[in-house]
Amino acid sequence: MTTVGIVGASGYAGGELLRILSLHPHVDVEVATSQGHAGENVFKVHPNLKGIADLTFSGDSPEEAATKVDILFMAVPHGTSNRQIPKLSETGVKIIDMSADFRFRNPADYPVWYGWNHTSPDILEKFVYGMPELHRNELKSCRFVAVPGCIASSAIYSLAPLAKAGLLKEVTVIDAKIGSSGSGNKHSAATHFSERYNSIRIYSPFGHRHIGEIEQELSLLAGSKITVTMSAHSVNMVRGIMTTASVFPEEMPDAAMVWKTYRAMYGNEPFVRFMMDKNGLYRYPDPKLVVGSNFVDLGFALDSHVNRIIAIGSIDNLIKGSAGNAVQSMNIMEGFDEREGLMMAPMRLV
Amino acid sequence: MTTVGIVGASGYAGGELLRILSLHPHVDVEVATSQGHAGENVFKVHPNLKGIADLTFSGDSPEEAATKVDILFMAVPHGTSNRQIPKLSETGVKIIDMSADFRFRNPADYPVWYGWNHTSPDILEKFVYGMPELHRNELKSCRFVAVPGCIASSAIYSLAPLAKAGLLKEVTVIDAKIGSSGSGNKHSAATHFSERYNSIRIYSPFGHRHIGEIEQELSLLAGSKITVTMSAHSVNMVRGIMTTASVFPEEMPDAAMVWKTYRAMYGNEPFVRFMMDKNGLYRYPDPKLVVGSNFVDLGFALDSHVNRIIAIGSIDNLIKGSAGNAVQSMNIMEGFDEREGLMMAPMRLV
Amino acid sequence: MTTVGIVGASGYAGGELLRILSLHPHVDVEVATSQGHAGENVFKVHPNLKGIADLTFSGDSPEEAATKVDILFMAVPHGTSNRQIPKLSETGVKIIDMSADFRFRNPADYPVWYGWNHTSPDILEKFVYGMPELHRNELKSCRFVAVPGCIASSAIYSLAPLAKAGLLKEVTVIDAKIGSSGSGNKHSAATHFSERYNSIRIYSPFGHRHIGEIEQELSLLAGSKITVTMSAHSVNMVRGIMTTASVFPEEMPDAAMVWKTYRAMYGNEPFVRFMMDKNGLYRYPDPKLVVGSNFVDLGFALDSHVNRIIAIGSIDNLIKGSAGNAVQSMNIMEGFDEREGLMMAPMRLV
Amino acid sequence: MTTVGIVGASGYAGGELLRILSLHPHVDVEVATSQGHAGENVFKVHPNLKGIADLTFSGDSPEEAATKVDILFMAVPHGTSNRQIPKLSETGVKIIDMSADFRFRNPADYPVWYGWNHTSPDILEKFVYGMPELHRNELKSCRFVAVPGCIASSAIYSLAPLAKAGLLKEVTVIDAKIGSSGSGNKHSAATHFSERYNSIRIYSPFGHRHIGEIEQELSLLAGSKITVTMSAHSVNMVRGIMTTASVFPEEMPDAAMVWKTYRAMYGNEPFVRFMMDKNGLYRYPDPKLVVGSNFVDLGFALDSHVNRIIAIGSIDNLIKGSAGNAVQSMNIMEGFDEREGLMMAPMRLV
Repeated sequence: MTTVGIVGASGYAGGELLRILSLHPHVDVEVATSQGHAGENVFKVHPNLKGIADLTFSGDSPEEAATKVDILFMAVPHGTSNRQIPKLSETGVKIIDMSADFRFRNPADYPVWYGWNHTSPDILEKFVYGMPELHRNELKSCRFVAVPGCIASSAIYSLAPLAKAGLLKEVTVIDAKIGSSGSGNKHSAATHFSERYNSIRIYSPFGHRHIGEIEQELSLLAGSKITVTMSAHSVNMVRGIMTTASVFPEEMPDAAMVWKTYRAMYGNEPFVRFMMDKNGLYRYPDPKLVVGSNFVDLGFALDSHVNRIIAIGSIDNLIKGSAGNAVQSMNIMEGFDEREGLMMAPMRLV
Repeated sequence: MTTVGIVGASGYAGGELLRILSLHPHVDVEVATSQGHAGENVFKVHPNLKGIADLTFSGDSPEEAATKVDILFMAVPHGTSNRQIPKLSETGVKIIDMSADFRFRNPADYPVWYGWNHTSPDILEKFVYGMPELHRNELKSCRFVAVPGCIASSAIYSLAPLAKAGLLKEVTVIDAKIGSSGSGNKHSAATHFSERYNSIRIYSPFGHRHIGEIEQELSLLAGSKITVTMSAHSVNMVRGIMTTASVFPEEMPDAAMVWKTYRAMYGNEPFVRFMMDKNGLYRYPDPKLVVGSNFVDLGFALDSHVNRIIAIGSIDNLIKGSAGNAVQSMNIMEGFDEREGLMMAPMRLV
Repeated sequence: MTTVGIVGASGYAGGELLRILSLHPHVDVEVATSQGHAGENVFKVHPNLKGIADLTFSGDSPEEAATKVDILFMAVPHGTSNRQIPKLSETGVKIIDMSADFRFRNPADYPVWYGWNHTSPDILEKFVYGMPELHRNELKSCRFVAVPGCIASSAIYSLAPLAKAGLLKEVTVIDAKIGSSGSGNKHSAATHFSERYNSIRIYSPFGHRHIGEIEQELSLLAGSKITVTMSAHSVNMVRGIMTTASVFPEEMPDAAMVWKTYRAMYGNEPFVRFMMDKNGLYRYPDPKLVVGSNFVDLGFALDSHVNRIIAIGSIDNLIKGSAGNAVQSMNIMEGFDEREGLMMAPMRLV
Repeated sequence: MTTVGIVGASGYAGGELLRILSLHPHVDVEVATSQGHAGENVFKVHPNLKGIADLTFSGDSPEEAATKVDILFMAVPHGTSNRQIPKLSETGVKIIDMSADFRFRNPADYPVWYGWNHTSPDILEKFVYGMPELHRNELKSCRFVAVPGCIASSAIYSLAPLAKAGLLKEVTVIDAKIGSSGSGNKHSAATHFSERYNSIRIYSPFGHRHIGEIEQELSLLAGSKITVTMSAHSVNMVRGIMTTASVFPEEMPDAAMVWKTYRAMYGNEPFVRFMMDKNGLYRYPDPKLVVGSNFVDLGFALDSHVNRIIAIGSIDNLIKGSAGNAVQSMNIMEGFDEREGLMMAPMRLV
């Protein structure tokens, strides 16, 4: 059994890791830290996990936790990993970081998108961007993983084949819709149920920090600098992301060609599904169909009125957009079947 | 008192007209027709209107209804008005048509966007597009009104000042989100609660019929042909529309200049609100803040990463997007205070 | 014009009073106090009221506010009115108190249900319980009104005719379901959207404080001590209350007799509706049909399996359960048409 | 591997069986019948199951399906099993029936609760009521299982210990709240999203058919005739049931005694959780905490105002209230670990 620890296990990402890893057949969760809840049963904070994750939060420091496990999942706020990981990286523990602190290849992206300078650029280059479908080979032999951002994941999955095919020439415009769990467990006036219910809040009309990741990964695939922009809306649901991206190619491809690029990239992927149908209720990806699972659903449409490709993606922000890709990356690192612990069927009727 | 009739009063648009007109101080609702519910109390179909609209559906034909009233509201499906209105237009009754059948100025737009040829182009030119803020003077002296489409309304309101200022040079990309009431009262597998709840359905990734109206009105304002595209999503709520439009100007204006264009167009409008705040929960328009009212809320943001103006609009699709603009147009035609019957305060906490 | 003030206008009850009173034809809102938001525009806190209630929060003390108006609405937390009203009651201002502090006739009920002793029992007896349908005559000549509790209102309306008819012999069991707005605007972990959405929370399985009011009013009508119990659940919506009460009579009445008792009590009431139908979607009261209005919808069913009468009531907790009854009481006190400012048609499609 | 078939696999219960059984390690789903969808891929009807249940609906008759498998799950409408099972019962196949047709021990209950006479009372007595916690020993050696009703399950689980302890003396009053999936996949005006959203519909104020099952099971445990009544409400969610039952004992027990009865019955059960906490968000069962899992959460409270025990239960209606108990019963019949295929952790944030 591989032993794992979760630093910051009382948050939503931490809880989702606990939910998945507790039932993983090759993993023992040895330690789940929470400074605020040390000594409490996990189910006091994650009551759904009663009978699933019957352990107690530890007050261990990240260093202490690192000594007890093979792999440490860091589920701490952005900016915290950056301070904690340099020391941890010398201990021999493998690290899977859920935060944004090690996602960029280029240190210069940190001041642009996060407003601070990265203090450990040497460690940065040891991290692999934990998107198995794009970085599987690097994951096989790495020790450090930076798990992609949730909205970034949906956008990158849907645009990657088009980027690789050289179709992203003009600015790509992404419209993102995300459920409330994306902003974590901290309550505020903005998350008060009476204010948030039935609301559509454009919380980031421009300048969303995930744009940096999206441009990084698409540019890698395209072999040239790709520019995207995005408007992000929080909508009336808890889980799920949908991205609708408008791509303006120099020349419109036909549907068969677009299909081919998607199949070439994802045809054998266990967690990528093509969701397109000529009729029926579900003609395109819809978060309702993926929530509760590690699937990413993809689809596209071609708009001849203005020569636009619409690339659509849906994921569960806490699974394929976070804990699921973390565990899938771990499975690859550890040589497990990639699907272990992740074959959760979407519930749909919820 | 002005006497009015509603043809097709059992649908959602008809019900909303009944809800508003029953409390209008200068109007008597003389007749509300429904072929399927003739003889039934209105509250059997619209149970919320018990104690508000205590009348009985009539089986009158549109012609019969026309003889009893000063103004006839046509709340019938698209394609039906086109057949019924030519005869009605000769009877002297004023007509306010809720359908799409008389919205286009150019008959050639019908085959493009609706797939059929308009059979009464001579009547078409007598209709005024019922958007008071853009066509007030024409409404004052007209006899026939074509009420704008719901999504089109939100998009046009938010883009009109920019079009007039000459800022729409490239293709404008609109992302629309709409509640379930926009698709009417006909149940189907697609509207079954268990399937529709928590869903985001991109029902029209491209080719939405309202694009035609949007291009018509914006081109009129710009004085040149404007091209827009749109992806429309039905989201997890019943009422409300939000449009997020991406405008790519030749040269980025500054915020003060954009403000000025909005104020110049809407500064004195009773039902247009600017919803922008540097902080707080509600920094931009949100359907939650307009639902239940005739307000349209507008806001914008400037994205220097790609030289993009984001124009945001929110309305209640059944009020400012349908029955509200119908009644406001009527108020103008009849010389009433424009606000009569329409001063409904948004509930927000719903 | 009657001049009014609202003390504590930044809360949800205060906001709802502003929403209604701003459009009331015989009322001027002179002052709206908020200690936390003094000097801010009302729309900063209640953004839906932009264009409706264009005034500024004042930092006036209740005493200062009282000098400026004919009627003072006290929308302050339970326990606060009790301290503020004794002084105010000597100033000549009329007072409509939204809190629980003056609802009980018997001071001894305060320690039982609220855990504190009432310090002004002499003033207590000058207050009328602001339920127009039960206390209209007292309201006509009173100066002080205690607005009923929201869940209490739904339960009392549905049970009052049965109590008066002597049918409440055994313990009456009430099951209450209420939306999130009933607990106010203060955010907490419990009201965090991600935790509250899709939840059914039995926040008060027994001992709810409104039981005291319900027993008081039903006992008055029955002429003997009535005992009720209640379990209260917060459900997945923002506005609305539904109460389902099980009454166990000594002898089962027939439906005609029950109808008669309801009609005798409410037959001429402008805001009481009977919602019962043998078929259709809406065979019984449903909050969806009253939300946004001052209506209370009532219905009943007879269960011969165990000789039980089911009495069902639905209201909008912020209107008929709070601000609506406050304004209706004011209308009676001031000799206005009782319906003024309150003829808001329920939206249903929301 | 045990081979299984599902008759009626296109409905919601059938889809949930497919979702669970497709991932069950000891089961092969050989056949999934649907008369309306024969020849179609399962994912055309259950799009969430793409990548999970990649099979095709068969048009097999129940008899044909029976020849191909060890166990046949009958997921057909009430009244259909009754006609189909007599013949099937002679073929040697084991049968797990999801309908109500074989739940009653006493044939005389059918005309009372379902309005028809049972035509195969001899087969009736061979069926075991598929509630593992109450009938485990019978399940071990049976061939035929009748899976309990969904609301009945929640009520029985929460009341069984009290019934066994002799505390149900007076009529027990149950208030039930259930999500939309409980009424299946057939769309109607009543299930139209715009009508159903934000609604609380008391669809069965009395006379609910599950009362028969509840009385049967509780009477068995009590050793005497138990009488219950129930009001059932459909609420604004898709999955989940909550029952709040009011028990009136002759003499009030103390909390320690009640705890003891619950622990004695369920202390070792893998899928029963006690959800009671003195503080925190989740002091009692809440469907939000069980949805997506096979857990039933139980809690209670003691109301000294009227000597009432409040017994609270929550389940996922499609899992512990249907497909989950079916699979758990199968596990017992087949000698598998009872938890196989059923260790799904609740998602909570959904």
